[in-house]
This record gives sequence, structure tokens and C-alpha cells, in this order.
Amino acid sequence: MTADPAQLSCPAPRVETERILLGHGSGGQLSAALVREVIVPALGESAPSGPLEDAAVFEVGGVDLVMSTDSFVVSPLFFPGGDIGKLAVHGTINDVAVMGGEPLALSLAFVIEEGFPLDDLRRVAASVGTAARAAGVSVVTGDSKVVGRGAADGLFVTTTGVGRRLATARFSAAAPVAGDVVLLSGPIGAHGVTVLSAREGLGFEGDVASDTRPLHRLVKVMVDAGGPAVHAVRDPTRGGLASALNEIAAAADVGVVVDEQAVPVPAPVAAACEMLGLDPFHVANEGCLVAFVAPAAADAVLAAMRSVPEGSAAVRIGEAVVDHPGRVTARTLVGAQRIVDMLIGEQLPRIC
Amino acid sequence: MTADPAQLSCPAPRVETERILLGHGSGGQLSAALVREVIVPALGESAPSGPLEDAAVFEVGGVDLVMSTDSFVVSPLFFPGGDIGKLAVHGTINDVAVMGGEPLALSLAFVIEEGFPLDDLRRVAASVGTAARAAGVSVVTGDSKVVGRGAADGLFVTTTGVGRRLATARFSAAAPVAGDVVLLSGPIGAHGVTVLSAREGLGFEGDVASDTRPLHRLVKVMVDAGGPAVHAVRDPTRGGLASALNEIAAAADVGVVVDEQAVPVPAPVAAACEMLGLDPFHVANEGCLVAFVAPAAADAVLAAMRSVPEGSAAVRIGEAVVDHPGRVTARTLVGAQRIVDMLIGEQLPRIC
Repeated sequence: MTADPAQLSCPAPRVETERILLGHGSGGQLSAALVREVIVPALGESAPSGPLEDAAVFEVGGVDLVMSTDSFVVSPLFFPGGDIGKLAVHGTINDVAVMGGEPLALSLAFVIEEGFPLDDLRRVAASVGTAARAAGVSVVTGDSKVVGRGAADGLFVTTTGVGRRLATARFSAAAPVAGDVVLLSGPIGAHGVTVLSAREGLGFEGDVASDTRPLHRLVKVMVDAGGPAVHAVRDPTRGGLASALNEIAAAADVGVVVDEQAVPVPAPVAAACEMLGLDPFHVANEGCLVAFVAPAAADAVLAAMRSVPEGSAAVRIGEAVVDHPGRVTARTLVGAQRIVDMLIGEQLPRIC
Repeated sequence: MTADPAQLSCPAPRVETERILLGHGSGGQLSAALVREVIVPALGESAPSGPLEDAAVFEVGGVDLVMSTDSFVVSPLFFPGGDIGKLAVHGTINDVAVMGGEPLALSLAFVIEEGFPLDDLRRVAASVGTAARAAGVSVVTGDSKVVGRGAADGLFVTTTGVGRRLATARFSAAAPVAGDVVLLSGPIGAHGVTVLSAREGLGFEGDVASDTRPLHRLVKVMVDAGGPAVHAVRDPTRGGLASALNEIAAAADVGVVVDEQAVPVPAPVAAACEMLGLDPFHVANEGCLVAFVAPAAADAVLAAMRSVPEGSAAVRIGEAVVDHPGRVTARTLVGAQRIVDMLIGEQLPRIC
């Protein structure tokens, strides 16, 4: 019996190595690749076109609507400064707001693991209610599904927000041009460090609390002050400030230069990041935003930001430049420049 | 040493028995209780008021919008006739449609377990794209989160839909009155039996396929034919036809009488239900709807339903009555009446 040459030359069976990694959920480069290279091409013509923004804008009956969705899988569910319910409300409100939308209605979907305490569900729902009321937004519809023990980790929450675009808001990640001033509404890193510390019992959670808060009122005063001179707004959540700036640099094809020392990092966040080997620029935030504003309007927009509590610590942190389009650099304290890359893999899983 | 009387009389520590059961996700009585007694009161003033509908209607800038959200946790992810992606698109389109909305935009949120095959994610996203295109709806925005191995079961999908209410659609579960005719768009039970059989390898899956399909075009022809005479429309998903009828009977405070033999049950579904001890009235559907229509318009609406493929098997199955308000009964083949209750616990977990 002789071997069949066709069998000998048969290629090895294709090995299925392509699997989801934790890093695909990081908000960094792998996340972007997942969306751009897997999900959007598979969706085909049904997918959104243009730069990937935090929310979609579309017109219905002459009204410009803004819509955004986010699933929240944060662990633990309760942490200093917030919980999954509050986070879900603020996260979605903020994604609508940073596309210029005045948030009006939220939907709320729970996936609950069998055995989850009803008291915890009550606490989360109450937190959703309180956060929505405080933000002036209604929870208009919802859903709840239950899966067996071990098929989910306690509770996942998906919120979707619908808002109406403010008349003069024309934000897009693609809109910034060289010369634009980069403004940051407040200190970075508190949310990520808090959740990580609470989950792992690192002990920082006594010194720091999540910055989760709604930002739509802040966006409103910015638009009132700057109108179309406000080119782009992002809330630097997963992937941190570095991802937000890189996404805008890439979409707008501009370089971005940030003064490292101008970026406020609270002392406990800096201490935690140093001990854990984290870059504060990569740590998630849930209560600040970064904006690219035409230089002529920058002072007025900055003053407007400082006039509301959630923007009281707003600062100018850098500018868009002609050089190194698509890249972000930071001027360090000693005058050197370093490249501020997007996070590649996963730094802090399940932070939101 | 004597026993301390205070210790002897000490009450037993409070036992935490209030936990989520699989039945809380059934779409039956426990689901309704969870929403009405736990979630809505905890949400407080932020919660929707009035009867719980499949979707919310609210006005923005003079335009009546319809919004609905659903998380999909179906197991297995792929089954005869569909998959989780197609189901998520159709489910949300249908929830918008049965509140009179013309679906326009969808959001799509994935919660993915680490290690999930990228090829399966591509298949699901492609299915979402195909279903959305076929229905004439755009996926405008999305999100993806990744959780560690064992923290989710493969993939959960949450879709939220926004539509514009058809001009003359005024559907509400509270609107039906005694005398209304109850119409059903087609056979029941196929989806639930298919998913159960595919999951458990029961062998029925060769004979039956999920009925998942979009129903917004069917609703449109019904509204064109009946206008405000179409009082209420529901798609009997989780909890089946029995839950849909009971919800309307309760919200409208009418009795409902159904002719059992008028309700089409495909032979393989009937066989599977008999073998498994299931009531077809409790089995989930993803491609039919039930409507309460004023008698004068019933024939015209029924004819309109039959004019489109998804309503070609539409039938009249009963009527709303003054007797036994809030309850549903079925006239059986032998002339007896039986009470058609909502499902209490869980019959078929993770069916959608």
C-alpha cells in the first residue's frame, strides 16, 4: 500500500487561533481593531460609516437625534463613588453629550445571573433612578434577562441614550485642525484606580473615588460659549486620555502635543499608578472630557467650563499641530517629548 | 457555666432568601413581578408610568419616537432558522413595530467572553447586518465589552431600536375594549421548540425552524387598513401567546376568550409540546403578532394582514369580552372553557 501523494501534500487543517482576548475590551488598539476589522466589515452596508464616534447622529422628521449604547460589566458592582447603575446612566449620557446631544431618554437592560441578590438589584435600580433624575433624563423602557448560575458574573447593564443635538453643536473626531487648543475638564485617572483598587483590595480606595458624573450640562455651556468653534469632544473612558487623543488625532489627521505637567493627576492616583506600573494617561475616567477648540474661542470656552462644578478644574493641556499627523506626543517636565500611544492590550479589565 | 438567656432567645440571623431565580426571566408572572415590584419602584420617578409596553413612545421636537431595548442571551447562539444576531435585530424591530413605530435605527452592544471564536463573532455580526439590511434599518452605533473566561456564556447581545410612530398608530395594551376582535398573524410555538430542541438535542430541530422575522411591514399594512381601530398589538415572545393575551387583558381590564382550535399550532410543535409537557400557548415566538381590533375594522385588517407574506396565515382567534376582566379563557374542542394563565416559573430558559 502506497501513500496517496495528495494526502501527503494536504495542508494541515486550519487551526482556529482567532479568539477574543481580554485586550479586545480595553478601549485601546485591540478594541479599535476588533471594531474596524471584524465587526464593521461583517455588518457590511448596515454599519455606520465615517469615523467611529461615541454616538451616532441621524435625522428623523427634521430633528437631529443623537444615540449611543454601552454595556457595563464593571467588577465590583459597587465601588467608592459609584456603582454599575450610576456608571451606566452617566456613561451613556456622556456619550450622547460628547456628540453634542442633549440627553432625553434612556433604555435600561439587565442580564442577571441566577442567584443574584434582589437587594443588590434594588440598589442598582435605585442608583439608576437617582442618577437619571439628577441628570434630568427619563428611563423610558427596559428589559431583564436571567441566565443560569455561572453563565454571567452577577449583573451586566446595557444603557442606550437618545438625545437631541444642540442647535450649534457640530462635533466630530474628524473636525479638529492644526492650531486647535486642547482643553481637559478636570483631573484624570480616579475611576480606573478606584475600581481596580476596590476589586483587588489594594487599599487605595480609601483615598480616591470614581469621578463618575454626567457631563451634558458642561457640554451645553461649552456650546453656548463656542458654538461651532468646538470641533471635537470626547470623554476619555476605557483606554484613558491617551486613547481619546489618539482617536481624534487619527480621525482628524492632525498631530497632538500635550504638556504632561498641565494634565492634572490627583496625588493618590499618581501614587497608585507608580506602584502598579500604570500610565495615568491610559487609566479610565468617567467624569471628565477633552475638547478641541478653535484658538479664537478657546479662552471663552475654558471660562465657560470653569463656570460649572464639573468643569471647575478645567485646563488647557496642549494643541493640535501640523507635525506627526495621527500621533500624540507629550512634552515632559524636562523638556523632552515622548510618544503617547494607545493602550495595546488590556491594562484594567472590567473597569466599566 | 449557664447558658445566657439572651443568646437562647436570640432570633435566627436573617436568611437572605430573596434571590433571582431563572423564572424571573421567563416572561411570565415572575418576570412581571420583578419589573413591577422590584425594578420600577427602585427606579422611582425616573421609571416609565402606565402599563408596561414593549416599547416607549415619547416626543422630541414635535416627532413621536418609539424606543425599545432587549438583551439576548439565547443558547445555543446558532439554531435552525436563525442565530442570536438575527434574533436581536428582529426582536427589537418587532418591539418598536408593535407600538406603532417604523423602525429606523438600531444600536448593538456585545458582551463577549474571553476565548470566544472571532469567526463566530463575524458570523453573528454578519447576520445582524443581513437582517438589518433586509428590514431597511441601520445599525448606527455600538459597543463591545469583554469579560474573562467563565464570567459570561459566550456572547450576549443587546439591541436598542428607535423608530418614528406611524401617524395613525395609537396602540396601547390598555386600549382594547369588550367586543374587540383578536387576530393572530400566524402559527405559534416554532421558535421556542426549535431553540429548546437544538440546545438539548431532542431531535425536533430537523422538523421545525425558528419563525424569527421582522414584523414592521405587517404592522404598517394593518395601520393603513385599520388606523386607530387597531387598539393593541403584541408579539408573543417570552411567555408565549398566553402572556401577551394576559398582559393586554390586565392592562385593558377586559376578559379575553380564545377559540383553542382556531390557534394554528404546526404539527411538529404540537408533537414536541405533547412529548415535553409544554403548553404551546406558553412557548416563545419571534415572528408572529396578536392584535386587538375594533369589530368594524377587523375584516379589513385581517385581509391586509393576509396580503403580506408574514401575515399570510393570519386568523381570527377570539374576542375581548365584558366577563372575567383581566383573565383569558380558551374554548376547547369539546366546548369546555379553560383558564389560560400566564406562565408562573421558567419553562424554557434562554430562549431569546
